[in-house]
Amino acid sequence: MPKTIYFRAEDLYDFTVSFFKRYHVADEDARIAADVLLSADLRGVDSHGLIRINTYYGSRLAKGLIDPASPITTLRESAVSLALDGGNGLGQVIGYRSMQRCLQKANESGLAMVTVCNSNHYGIAGYYAMMALPENMIGISLTNSQPLVAPTNGRNALLGTNPIAVAIPAGKEQPYVLDMATSIVPIGRVSVYQKAGKPIPEGWGIDKNGNVTENPDEVLEGGALLPLGGTEVMRGYKGYGLSLLVDILSGVLSGASFGPEVGQPKDGKNANVGHFFAAIRIDLFREIMDFKTDMDRFIFLLKNSPLAAGSDRIYIHGEKEFAKEKDFRKNGVPLMEPVVRMLQSAGKEAGVDFNLEVLRSVQEDF
Amino acid sequence: MPKTIYFRAEDLYDFTVSFFKRYHVADEDARIAADVLLSADLRGVDSHGLIRINTYYGSRLAKGLIDPASPITTLRESAVSLALDGGNGLGQVIGYRSMQRCLQKANESGLAMVTVCNSNHYGIAGYYAMMALPENMIGISLTNSQPLVAPTNGRNALLGTNPIAVAIPAGKEQPYVLDMATSIVPIGRVSVYQKAGKPIPEGWGIDKNGNVTENPDEVLEGGALLPLGGTEVMRGYKGYGLSLLVDILSGVLSGASFGPEVGQPKDGKNANVGHFFAAIRIDLFREIMDFKTDMDRFIFLLKNSPLAAGSDRIYIHGEKEFAKEKDFRKNGVPLMEPVVRMLQSAGKEAGVDFNLEVLRSVQEDF
Repeated sequence: MPKTIYFRAEDLYDFTVSFFKRYHVADEDARIAADVLLSADLRGVDSHGLIRINTYYGSRLAKGLIDPASPITTLRESAVSLALDGGNGLGQVIGYRSMQRCLQKANESGLAMVTVCNSNHYGIAGYYAMMALPENMIGISLTNSQPLVAPTNGRNALLGTNPIAVAIPAGKEQPYVLDMATSIVPIGRVSVYQKAGKPIPEGWGIDKNGNVTENPDEVLEGGALLPLGGTEVMRGYKGYGLSLLVDILSGVLSGASFGPEVGQPKDGKNANVGHFFAAIRIDLFREIMDFKTDMDRFIFLLKNSPLAAGSDRIYIHGEKEFAKEKDFRKNGVPLMEPVVRMLQSAGKEAGVDFNLEVLRSVQEDF
Repeated sequence: MPKTIYFRAEDLYDFTVSFFKRYHVADEDARIAADVLLSADLRGVDSHGLIRINTYYGSRLAKGLIDPASPITTLRESAVSLALDGGNGLGQVIGYRSMQRCLQKANESGLAMVTVCNSNHYGIAGYYAMMALPENMIGISLTNSQPLVAPTNGRNALLGTNPIAVAIPAGKEQPYVLDMATSIVPIGRVSVYQKAGKPIPEGWGIDKNGNVTENPDEVLEGGALLPLGGTEVMRGYKGYGLSLLVDILSGVLSGASFGPEVGQPKDGKNANVGHFFAAIRIDLFREIMDFKTDMDRFIFLLKNSPLAAGSDRIYIHGEKEFAKEKDFRKNGVPLMEPVVRMLQSAGKEAGVDFNLEVLRSVQEDF
C-alpha cells in the first residue's frame, strides 16, 4: 500500500492559492477556492479535496472549459431569493459568493433561498451550509452532479450522487453538520475496492444489466451506484427520491442541466451544474438561547444513550469531521503518496513548485 | 388471511366526519380531519388511515387528551414565518390550518416556513405538502413522532420514523410527491410479518441489545427500527442523520418535544408533537411554464430509460399513490376485515353507526 505523507495545512493552502492564480483566477477567488478545496482534506473527505485539483479544476481552466473570472450574474431577485447564473466559473467561488448573498438576504428577511445554474463542481456541499453557523442560522446546500446513480428498477446511471448538506448551530456542543451523498457510497469508494482487488459489499452497485454485483469492475464499467437504501427490500426508492429531489431543486429550479445531462469533468463542454442554497434565521421561531439549550440536550441524550453490542460510541453528524480538522491543523494533513506525485506534476504544469516541507510519512494498511 | 371489504370513499368520509363531530370537533374541523385521514387509505398508505381512528384520535378525544377545539395560537410571526402552538388539538386540523397560512405567506412573500409545537399525530405528511401543488408552489411537510428508531451504534429507540414529504408540480406529468419515513420501514410493517409468522429482512430492525435480528418479536419487544440505510456498511448513519434533521426542524425549532420525549398514543399525557412546513413559489426562480416543461422532460427521461433485469417499470415518487386514489375513488376503498370490525365498535362507542353499503368483499393472500 502507498505511504501517507503529512503536510502543514498552511503550506497546502498557499500552494493551492498559487495554483489557481496561475490559471488567471483573481487573488481573492483563488483564496476562496483553496479554502473550500483544502477544507475537504481537513475534514477527512479527501475524495473531494486536493486529489481533484487538476482533473476537476486545473485541466479544465487550462482548456478554457471553466471561466477563471467566475462572472456571476443575477437572473431574478426578490427580498428572499436570488436566481443566479454562475457564468461557468469555478464552483467553489460561485458557491461561496452565492451562499454569502443568501446569508445577507436571510439576515434582512429571515429566510432566503438561492438557485444557481451554469456552475461547475463546487467541492464539499457542507462548506457552504456551515457558513450559516456563525450567523446563528441554519444553512442548506444542495448540488446536482455527474450521472453515476441508477433510479430504482433502472439500469443506467441517470442521477448524480447529489449531496444534501445541512448545518445547524448548537450551544456548548458542536454543531450538527449533515453532509451526505444520496447514493450509498461515492464512486471513489468503489475504485478503492477495485484497486485493492476486493469485492464490494452487496447492494452498493449494479452491473450494466441492473443486477446487484459485488464486483467493483462491473459497477465501474457500464454499471451504476445504487441510491441510499440500495435494493427494493431495503427501500432504495427513498434514496432515489432524495437524489431526484436534490436534482429538481438544484437543476430544474435553477434552469441548469439535470439528470443524465449534467456534465462530467472529462467532457469537453460546460458542465452546467446547478446548486441550491438556503438560510433560515433561528430567531424567527424561538429565542436562540433556548434553541441552543435544547440542541445541547438532544445531543447529550443521543450520545449518552445505551450502546449497541460491539459499538463504542454514538456520533452526531459532523463530529468526526470536526475532530479530524482539529487534529490535521495541529499535526499535519495526510495525503496519499500518489496524490502528492499528482500535485507535483500538476504544479509543474501550472508553473508552481510543490516543494513543501514533509512533516512525516507513514506506511498505512488498507 | 382476513377478507378485504370495499366501501365508497364518500360513505367512509361521511362516517368519519360524524365520528369526529361526536367528540365535539366543529363541523369544518371534522371535515378537515376526515379528509386527511381518508386520503391515507385512498393513497394506499392504510397504516396512517382509518385504522388509527380510535387509538390515535377517538380514544384520546374521549379521555380529554386531545382538545377538540384545536385552539391554535401564534407565538411569533414575520412576513415569511410563523411559530404556532397547536393547543394540543387534532394534528390533522393543526397541520391543515398551518400549511394554509404558510401558503398565504408564501403567496405574498415568495417563501414561508411555519413551525408548530404542542400538536398531535397529523396523519400522512404528504397531504400538507400536496396543498402547495394547486398554487404552483413546492410544499414541504415534516413531523417528529413517537420514538421507534435507534441512532447508529445505539440500542434504544430514541427517534421517530420522522417523515419527509415534498410535493413539486409538473406539467402534463403527475407531480413529484415524496412521502417517506426516515426509517427503512414503519413499525406496522414489522407487525405484519409478526402476525404472518415470517422473519423480517435482515437490517430492518435490532433487538434489545442492538443486534440486527430477523425475528419481528425481538424488534417489537424492546428492540428498535433501523434508519434508512440500515447497518454501518450500508451507511445507515445517513438515515439517522435525516431522522435527526427532521426532529430538529419539527421538534427543537418549534419548541415541541423531541427525540425520546415525544408522546406515544398510549401515553396518558399530551404528545407535544412538532411539525415543520415550508412553501416555495417557483416563479421566484424561473418561469413556471419552463419549470414544468423541464419537470416533464426529467420524468420522461427517467421513466423511459432502460430497465434493470427483472423490472417492469421505473416509477416517479407519488405515481403509485395517484393511481391508487383514482382506482379507489372509482371502485371503492379496500379495508381489511379487522379494521371494519374496529370501525364498527369505535362507531358504537362514539354513537355513530358504521352501517355502510359493502361494494364487494375479497379474500386476499399475504
